[in-house]
Amino acid sequence: MKQVSKELVVHTHGRELLEITTHINEWLRQNSLQEGILNIFIKHTSASLTIQENADPDVLVDLLFYFEQLVEDAHPEFRHRAEGPDDMSAHIRSALTDVSLTIPVMNGALNLGTWQGVYVFEHRTSPHSRRIVMSFIGT
Amino acid sequence: MKQVSKELVVHTHGRELLEITTHINEWLRQNSLQEGILNIFIKHTSASLTIQENADPDVLVDLLFYFEQLVEDAHPEFRHRAEGPDDMSAHIRSALTDVSLTIPVMNGALNLGTWQGVYVFEHRTSPHSRRIVMSFIGT
Amino acid sequence: MKQVSKELVVHTHGRELLEITTHINEWLRQNSLQEGILNIFIKHTSASLTIQENADPDVLVDLLFYFEQLVEDAHPEFRHRAEGPDDMSAHIRSALTDVSLTIPVMNGALNLGTWQGVYVFEHRTSPHSRRIVMSFIGT
Repeated sequence: MKQVSKELVVHTHGRELLEITTHINEWLRQNSLQEGILNIFIKHTSASLTIQENADPDVLVDLLFYFEQLVEDAHPEFRHRAEGPDDMSAHIRSALTDVSLTIPVMNGALNLGTWQGVYVFEHRTSPHSRRIVMSFIGT
Repeated sequence: MKQVSKELVVHTHGRELLEITTHINEWLRQNSLQEGILNIFIKHTSASLTIQENADPDVLVDLLFYFEQLVEDAHPEFRHRAEGPDDMSAHIRSALTDVSLTIPVMNGALNLGTWQGVYVFEHRTSPHSRRIVMSFIGT
Repeated sequence: MKQVSKELVVHTHGRELLEITTHINEWLRQNSLQEGILNIFIKHTSASLTIQENADPDVLVDLLFYFEQLVEDAHPEFRHRAEGPDDMSAHIRSALTDVSLTIPVMNGALNLGTWQGVYVFEHRTSPHSRRIVMSFIGT
């Protein structure tokens, strides 16, 4: 059993779902990590992680639409406004999704379902650099 | 320290919360897994996992009711419709709950609170076979 | 590689976000836990865990406000009412946030982002004692 970790930096383009499955699998392959679990952790509170269908891109469009309705930008009752109208809604969207995902690793790759992809869910409207820590435990 | 994993297949009956706590504890017992952590990962994007009260079955009824209100089936703005009116809402319900849960293991069983049970949360209205990966790390 | 776990009891004061980052880092330090992952698991279904900004306290005020709107107390359709008007809404708020968080550990402390703190999210309106299991795996 060993433990290996690495920080990955992802550049987002504003509010979007950006798939990182290939980046993660590439890192597993380069380090010959075969069987175990991989934790993925995003070091931010206005972007998050989610696993979603990566077959039909309309799923991502609909998800973005849904969260626009669910968490209003610049709600008049919000006090936290210093960083812009999309900031407090970003914190809430982050709380409703995930900052940490643990995924099984098998045969040197993420053991995902056929249609699953791992996404960074950027909640801010402007581009950001997002730091993600990958921590593998296994063989 | 060792690492043991196993895929479990669960048959759901349409939209429901189906408890799997006993299945998981049985697997831990059969493999003499004593102390550590267990990751449970569902390999789908239209069913998810959650931990809820398993004492009063009305909690599950109310949860299902709440999610019906929160995420409308067949919202007129949804583009992803090919798999039926309950499919895009299922992806969203999945994003709002969990695809991955990590739970402590103590004395050969899940170290849950008195009223906690582990559930598969089926979001589709028709029965499905759902694949779940259990990954144990510990002693 | 080793595995160390500990149950922490936290006393909440009613509906609030209570930061526990310092308690967790103190435990890591006392046990000389250096590199790996830490799982934090709350043994309840009416309180949860979340990672949020710990710089501006208004973020916590706005989060509490948002969840008051999102999940109504004592919704007339709820059946589960025996434990009070805030109980079923607490179960739902728990399902929408996290009962389990896995966080990387580096140099003997949680490897959090600059503005991230770990919080117990108490959803009941009265004070409670909440049990949290910390499970470390690493070196």
